[in-house]
Amino acid sequence: MGALETLPPASDAEDALTALTALVRDDLVACNRVIVARMDSPVALIPQLAAHIVAAGGKRLRPVLTLACARLCGYREGLRHVNLAACVEFIHTATLLHDDVVDESRLRRGHASANAVFGNKASVLVGDFLFARAFQLMVEDGSLQVLRILSGAAATIAEGEVLQLVTQNDLSTSEAQYLDVVRGKTAALFAAACEVGAVVAARPAAEVAALRDYGMNLGIAFQLADDALDYAADQAVLGKTVGDDFREGKITLPVLSAYDAGDAAERGFWQRTIEACEQTDADLEQALRLMSERGAIRVTLQRAAHFAALARQSLAEFADTPLRRLLQAVANYAVSRAR
Amino acid sequence: MGALETLPPASDAEDALTALTALVRDDLVACNRVIVARMDSPVALIPQLAAHIVAAGGKRLRPVLTLACARLCGYREGLRHVNLAACVEFIHTATLLHDDVVDESRLRRGHASANAVFGNKASVLVGDFLFARAFQLMVEDGSLQVLRILSGAAATIAEGEVLQLVTQNDLSTSEAQYLDVVRGKTAALFAAACEVGAVVAARPAAEVAALRDYGMNLGIAFQLADDALDYAADQAVLGKTVGDDFREGKITLPVLSAYDAGDAAERGFWQRTIEACEQTDADLEQALRLMSERGAIRVTLQRAAHFAALARQSLAEFADTPLRRLLQAVANYAVSRAR
Repeated sequence: MGALETLPPASDAEDALTALTALVRDDLVACNRVIVARMDSPVALIPQLAAHIVAAGGKRLRPVLTLACARLCGYREGLRHVNLAACVEFIHTATLLHDDVVDESRLRRGHASANAVFGNKASVLVGDFLFARAFQLMVEDGSLQVLRILSGAAATIAEGEVLQLVTQNDLSTSEAQYLDVVRGKTAALFAAACEVGAVVAARPAAEVAALRDYGMNLGIAFQLADDALDYAADQAVLGKTVGDDFREGKITLPVLSAYDAGDAAERGFWQRTIEACEQTDADLEQALRLMSERGAIRVTLQRAAHFAALARQSLAEFADTPLRRLLQAVANYAVSRAR
Repeated sequence: MGALETLPPASDAEDALTALTALVRDDLVACNRVIVARMDSPVALIPQLAAHIVAAGGKRLRPVLTLACARLCGYREGLRHVNLAACVEFIHTATLLHDDVVDESRLRRGHASANAVFGNKASVLVGDFLFARAFQLMVEDGSLQVLRILSGAAATIAEGEVLQLVTQNDLSTSEAQYLDVVRGKTAALFAAACEVGAVVAARPAAEVAALRDYGMNLGIAFQLADDALDYAADQAVLGKTVGDDFREGKITLPVLSAYDAGDAAERGFWQRTIEACEQTDADLEQALRLMSERGAIRVTLQRAAHFAALARQSLAEFADTPLRRLLQAVANYAVSRAR
């Protein structure tokens, strides 16, 4: 509980992400150029569809992490971090395309999703293309260690996504299983994005591991806060629709917490709405009220704050520089934006 | 036309594939073991779904090609060819899973397709997993040249699939564009499967290129014959339903040939059935009759025979051994099975 209270206000934390992004701005501009150049293809639909999702914006958080971690590790002599940041963003974009098909989403970051505009078929295939392109970029980089990290992350992401599919609508999912889903679908790529920053700088194994841990914990904090945000009815942030997870019967910590703490009647409510997916218009409001009464959002954000604290601690390996402090502040941002 | 007439009877050619498979049987058994071991995951649905499609059989043509090409190149000292053959089959399986989702297929090799049994979502995600796993296997192999070949093939496959989607229902597609689709969706992986056989044996560039050409031409011949087979109403082979391509409005050489050679009334028929996808029960029979009258299947098989001849010629680089003759006979098999 302490971790949550000691976080700075959301505005300060958001400033940290802005400041971090500003610090790597030149590299990020170069990374965006690589992204545009390498999503090109003689098959015009590929860059069209890819541009739709890449141009839709997003914070480019993962490539920023790769660029910042490379800089934290003193990498100066080349553009490997720029190319690998693009590669990380390609893997992320490929998974977004496939996620939206799997979730039948019509919106992504407040705009029509690629599958809504171009259809499921094109989204699946262009996702495959971007995934393959990511590997081509890695092969050009030429480091087997980088390839090992990112191909491992790709397999773990897919495992996490399948596990999420399996646990959907299942209220007997344990918090440990839920965290396995989160580690897979989100945190594994955060971890890999940070880790390769240390690898290009040829840093010792302890620093490589420290940045992997930082990314993993940051990713978990980020996803937990995101899952809380999905029920944060008073905030119109992130271009997300409140209640998406609820309508899909997605098992997230807010639901598991409210279910575990609920009485028999409440459990019946969750079984009907999440397990049987029988929902009326009034059910989302009832879900939000039960979560508030049972402190489910607060519990979720406390868990997020715990992982954010672990992320900050992972950076103890590095000298106390302004860049390190910014990376630590970004861990706060992951959680504060959801309060 | 000559090329088609000089082919041996189908039964002899099929014996060639059987003989080739028998020749690499020990390696293929080892490859199947790698496939089963490496499609495993703590997420039980992954091996379940993967086993459904892997166990459904198929000829394991691509891994057999990798194993046979490695042997043709004198590779003896290790198991790299076995692991890379598994990797090629994983890429193939991943594309099949995604294809069946994209094509909304209910059948694969005469059995219920994975998406019909497990749903589209699981098929997309397990496809992603197998694709990632393929890259992990390649990284374990450790050759950047192999990684370059197979990541390039993966990108080309996706491009071919998207191009196929774009040209669907479009009778103005040129034969050149159609061949680009075929090179991408089918032949690129045949080429890569053969090429890595030479790479593991550390053969000179000319032999590597020769096997790539062999695989590419073989793959084109194979797909052309497959497209002919889809209209070969008197054959119940391959577990395929006759007329699948017709019902989907897929643009293949039989359709393009019949359309190009047709009179105004015939063109109207193709525009209605393929472009507008307005079909009645009697239309498939009419399509088959028009193809027969316009020699469309024959033209397609002649093109297939042309590429099979190119495949055979590509092997001129190698000594005239029984194994080389078997690989050449397999090129005949690709075409003869459709006659």
